[in-house]
Parts: sequence; C-alpha cells; structure tokens
Amino acid sequence: MMLMNLSTIQALDAADPLRHKRDDFVVPDHLTYLDGNSLGLLPKSTLERVSRMICRQWGGDAVMSWNIHGWIGLPQRLGAQIAPLIGAEAKEVIVADSASVNVFKLLAAACKAQGSRTTILSEPGNFPTDLYIAQGVAELLQDRHVRTVCAEEIVAAIDADTAVVLLTHVHYKSGRKLDMAAITAAAHAKGALVLWDLCHSAGAVPVNLNACGADLAIGCGYKFLNGGPGAPAFLFVAEALQESLRSPLSGWMGHAAPFAFDDDYVPARGIGRFLCGTPSIIAMAALEQGIASFEGTDLELLWQKARQLSQTFIELVDAKCSGLGLRLISPRDPYARGSHVSFAHDEDAYAVCQALIARGVIPDFRAPDAVRFGFTPLYTSFEDVWKATETLRDVLAQRAWEEPAYQVRAAVT
Amino acid sequence: MMLMNLSTIQALDAADPLRHKRDDFVVPDHLTYLDGNSLGLLPKSTLERVSRMICRQWGGDAVMSWNIHGWIGLPQRLGAQIAPLIGAEAKEVIVADSASVNVFKLLAAACKAQGSRTTILSEPGNFPTDLYIAQGVAELLQDRHVRTVCAEEIVAAIDADTAVVLLTHVHYKSGRKLDMAAITAAAHAKGALVLWDLCHSAGAVPVNLNACGADLAIGCGYKFLNGGPGAPAFLFVAEALQESLRSPLSGWMGHAAPFAFDDDYVPARGIGRFLCGTPSIIAMAALEQGIASFEGTDLELLWQKARQLSQTFIELVDAKCSGLGLRLISPRDPYARGSHVSFAHDEDAYAVCQALIARGVIPDFRAPDAVRFGFTPLYTSFEDVWKATETLRDVLAQRAWEEPAYQVRAAVT
Repeated sequence: MMLMNLSTIQALDAADPLRHKRDDFVVPDHLTYLDGNSLGLLPKSTLERVSRMICRQWGGDAVMSWNIHGWIGLPQRLGAQIAPLIGAEAKEVIVADSASVNVFKLLAAACKAQGSRTTILSEPGNFPTDLYIAQGVAELLQDRHVRTVCAEEIVAAIDADTAVVLLTHVHYKSGRKLDMAAITAAAHAKGALVLWDLCHSAGAVPVNLNACGADLAIGCGYKFLNGGPGAPAFLFVAEALQESLRSPLSGWMGHAAPFAFDDDYVPARGIGRFLCGTPSIIAMAALEQGIASFEGTDLELLWQKARQLSQTFIELVDAKCSGLGLRLISPRDPYARGSHVSFAHDEDAYAVCQALIARGVIPDFRAPDAVRFGFTPLYTSFEDVWKATETLRDVLAQRAWEEPAYQVRAAVT
Repeated sequence: MMLMNLSTIQALDAADPLRHKRDDFVVPDHLTYLDGNSLGLLPKSTLERVSRMICRQWGGDAVMSWNIHGWIGLPQRLGAQIAPLIGAEAKEVIVADSASVNVFKLLAAACKAQGSRTTILSEPGNFPTDLYIAQGVAELLQDRHVRTVCAEEIVAAIDADTAVVLLTHVHYKSGRKLDMAAITAAAHAKGALVLWDLCHSAGAVPVNLNACGADLAIGCGYKFLNGGPGAPAFLFVAEALQESLRSPLSGWMGHAAPFAFDDDYVPARGIGRFLCGTPSIIAMAALEQGIASFEGTDLELLWQKARQLSQTFIELVDAKCSGLGLRLISPRDPYARGSHVSFAHDEDAYAVCQALIARGVIPDFRAPDAVRFGFTPLYTSFEDVWKATETLRDVLAQRAWEEPAYQVRAAVT
C-alpha cells in the first residue's frame, strides 16, 4: 500500500479528469456526504427544470401539456436515457412506479410465463423489499415458494423447478458484486429466468445487461442517478421477452390504446406494456436532470474513479483505524464490489454512525452491525474520503460513540 | 328556467362567497379551462413549496431529511388531510402510488380475504383502468372472473359468489353519481365488499365513506385535488378491515419495521401496510399544496357551487345550442351527478372538442362521442361557464368543427 497523506490525496483530486462534475451538484459545505447510494445529491439544474415544468407547462398549458410538452412520452424518453448506463437498448428500458412495484410486475409476469415451475430463488439477506415482494408474489399465485440460498450456492441450486432467480447485482450492504454473465448463463441452461436488482449498480459500476444475456432488471432513480427522494424507478425487459410477458398490473397506461377507453385490456406492444397508472410528471422532470448529470461523461473514467475512491477509503481506514473495532465486510477487490464499502462494528454500528453524523460525516447504518459508506464518482472527492476517515478514526479512538445521545434510534436512519 | 344573460352571470360571480379562492390558482388568461377533472390547475403556492423542498430539504439536508423534515410521515400526513374531504378518519387514508396500483392492492387483497367467492362485479363502461386492473387480478388469482352489468342492475346482481363490487362513484364520462350507501348496504347483505373509485368525486362532491359504511376506496390526486400531473393517489380502508387485509404489493415501506431489514415480510399495523416502495417526496410536496387549497373552505358552500356551476352550464347550453346536434348524457338532477357534464355529438365529438380548444375553451373528448366539461368550484367562475357556452354555440352554429384540421387525432386528448 502506498503511503497517503493529505497532499497525495489532494493530488488525486487535482489529477481527476471528472473533478469539474462536482460543480454540477449542490454539495452542502458542512457535510462530508458519503450516502449518495441512499439519496443522491441535488443537481444544480434540477430546480430550474422542475420550476419550468411547473410554471410554463402545468401552469401555462395545463392538460394540453400531455401533448404540447410531450409528457406522455416521458417514461420511454427517460428509459432511453438510462439504457446506455446499463448496457441496454432504448426500447428495452422504461421509467415507472417504484423499484418495489417493478419487482412485482416482472417477477409475477415471469412466474406466470414459466408455467409449472414453482421456485423463486434468491439469497438470504437480499435487499428486503425484493424478498418481501417475492413472498407476496408466491402467496398471491399459490403453489409457488421462495427459496433462499447463499450467493455462492445459487448456481448449484438452480434446477428444473426454478422459475425465476431474483438477485441484487451489487449487494446493498456488503457491496459485493455478483457475476451477472455467469449466473444468467447458468440459469438459462436450466430454463430459468433471472431478474436483476440494479439499485446499487446503475450509475456506479459498469452494467452490461445485453452482453450478459440478461432477461429482466429493475433499478432505482434516487441513488446514483440523482433523481431526488423517491424518484420514479426503471425496469428493463430484454426485447425478445417483451411480447411473452404480461404485466399483472394491467393499468391503462400500459394499454395498446389507452385513449380508446375500451372495456378490455390489450397490452401495448413492447416495453410500454409495463406501465400501469399515470406517472408523476414533476418527479420525472427531476429524474431527467439526475440522468442528465451523466451527459458528456466518459463512463470508463467514471467507473475507474468509483473503484479508486472506495479503494482509497479502505486503504485509509486500514492505516488509521487498525485495532479500533472495525471489520471490513465488503470485498477487497474493487472489481468484485460496487461503489460502497461497509464495515461492521459489533454491537455499536448504530452509535458510531450517529457520532459521525454529528460531526458532519454522513454514512448509513444498516442493521444490525454495518456502517456503510457510499462513493458517487460524479461528486465525491478524494478529500471527502480523507476527511471521513480522519473523523472515523477520531470517533473510534475517543470512543465518542459511547455518548448516550448516539445510542437512541430515530425512526429512520 | 330563469332567463340568463351576461349580467345575471356576473351577478352570480359577484355573489359567490368562494370567488376569492380563484386567486389562489394560476388561471391562464387565454383559456376558459373546463378540464380540472382531467388535470387540476396549478395552485400559486405550489412552486414555492416544491422549491423549498428541493433546495432547503433535499439540497441542504440530503438523506437526513427523511427524519429532519418528516418525509417518512408524508403518506400518512397527506392521507389525514384528504380524510375530511371524503368522510373518513385520518387513520383510514394514505397517499401512495397511482390510482391504478391502489385498485390492484385493494382488489387483490379483498378477493383473497373473500375466500372462495369468485366474482368481481363491475359495470361495462366503468373507467377503463378499473376494468383492466380487475381483469389482471382475475387472471393472476385464477378461478376468479370479472362480471359486468349495468349500474341499475348491480344491486340485483350481487350474490353469494360476489367477492368484490368495483364501482366508480361519479362516472368519468356521464358524471352519473351512484348511491354509495344503498349499494354498500346491498353488498354487505350478501357478504360482498365494495371498492369505490373516487377519482371524479374527491374534492368535487360530498363523499361520506364512513356514513355509508364503505369498505374500500381509492382516488386520484391530480384532478379536483390539484396535486399536479400524475400526482400520487390515495386509498381508504375502513379501520375494521385493515388488519384482515394484506397488500399483495408487500414492499418494504409497508413492513412493520422497514429499517430492521429482516428477511420476512410482516405487514405494518393499520393503514401503513398499504404502502409499497419509496414514494416521491417532490410529487407529494406538490400534492400537499393542492390539498391545502381546500383549507378554510366551507365544504357545503363548495358542493353547492359545484352543483350551481354545472346546472348553469346545462341551462345555457339548452338555451343557446338547441337543435345543434348535442345530446345531454349526464343526469339533469344536480344531486345525481358529479361536477362535470357531458354532451354527445354523434360522430363529431372529437372535432367539436378540437374546435373549442382552438378557441381557448378546454373541455375533454371521451371516446367515442362525448364532449366533457368539468367545473372545479375552487376556481371555475360563472363567467367561464358563460364564455364556454358562447363559444360552443358559435362552433356548432358555424359548423366550425368540419374544418379538416380538427378531425386529425393526436396521441392524447
């Protein structure tokens, strides 16, 4: 490991070809924000875009805006803008609903298409909403069940009864990245489909859905895509599968002719059939600016910076916090993880988080024992990484987290 | 019928105790807007509220805003604000997802709870998304089917096999209002549940869910609630039913302890179990201002004005457009309809609509033959009603709608 000090860190920032992208975001002065994988920061252009949509479009042209300002095409337009970030074609991606609702749509549709196969295969400790939705789908469809096996055993567990394999590409807690190509190939060999959760991948690591032969995927708009709190989510269905899947949420926006007002549901051709109700245009206007943050960015440089940020963080924690109770629970190989890193701290991870937040360093607590640090290559600087590790060392060395105030849990963390 | 001219109309506006409410909205100068039941106009306070949320909350406090600014409680808070408009308790209403997604949640949950009963009963020509979602639920659950009978025959059609009756309180096209209390009582007598679609009712006519013994309802945020295009929707579950229903969309926001990150789904107690994924905070901020438009308004006066506006419209059309090809398809009794009125015009309703829009009068075309005029008592004036009928008479008398440009259909109308 090279020896790093503040000067070498500042030299990394000075040499960063993407350092100007930070100026596109509102980065709060008083914070060292390492939680862009929970909520991405505000792009400076978002307020103007949302204000224009509200005042000129809704305020000025009211309902006619659906045509005049192309509101009706926003789900497809935003999907097409996300597609290059995840290795998909424009016609394979659409923005709609929440990630949870999209898991439901694709998982239920895929289970139905898989006929008599009864198993939804996932891993224990997968992001909870994926497991919860899978349990709901199994209960609703009857004669289906959710089976969970450790990620390392997934490939061996896929069999002739596996309808769908439901996995998160980059694990929300550990940051561990799964081998999308290998797992997809193994599933296909047994006739199973795979649904990938890209919430912690899209915009943070290279994703090549079509190169991996992927079937289905969903993802989130408010993490690395910077679309704002609760931003609309996206979904991907490989073109070859689109006509064979029917969304169980057969709302009017997914109808072949929504304004014919026919009594019978006929799904739209293509990806549009996975829309359901009327989408929030204000929320999509904000998401559009989040996605636009990537414009003109060399993605290879972005992924490289992401790896470098998290690797620098691990090296600095190793150097500064040795013997202070932290245990790395993310892979050490930067190619084997996403753009966040988690350390366990026995029973005190929650209080350590609170002590960091009180000092302006923003990680996330993830129950029961993880402190998670996210690195958004568009705006996180190497100096952020340095500051965070300085504060982390101080909090641990001074046992600052033992202060009673930090032990009290709030409703959301 | 009293004889009306512009002076008597202006006298109605002068005497309107709610006329000052119009000042709370951005009413485009160049439009006579009678489409608030498709998209409500922009409240003047919305931009400031949304900007503050974006800049100070998201921009300033980022992820901590979930606690600091109470984002996590917005679905319940907004539900509580809608409750008085629909005759419900605060704890029975929540804001979430779209109206279509909410129909799915409640309909699937109710069908499951109804055990072996197999029929979802609705009416032909119900708002399409209700029928489409019902078809999706029936297909997904198997051994269920959707039966449609005319509204007048609904009560007689409810039997021991009826799981759920799915009806729209105020019909989207005709404006016909159903007798919620009578239908609910008839359904309960046969052991059936009723799910009411309030999209064209909430904020436009009195709704008394609990007084009617209602079970379930959903509604829309972007029509009379003025929440903005594609605003989040709401749902109502009577308190006594909440614990017996499980949402099929069992996402993490409806979990009893979403931040415990347990692997198994356990529904929250109460109305919160009907949440699914992370909701858009920006969209909810806009909706909150829409609902706030009702603050300090005497609802009885509001409903009275709504009836008076649509009644005046019908009387003026009768007087001015007699013999010009229009046929009223809404009830003449203002207590038997909502706050919109539709006229059929044989094969030319679409072109008539386009000719009106070209002249700044904004109705809605509803296939195949209806021109629909909506009256939002918070901002529609009697002079708007006068102007619209003057233009309507001119368009019809001059056969302006025969111009070829008006015959070409756009993607959305």
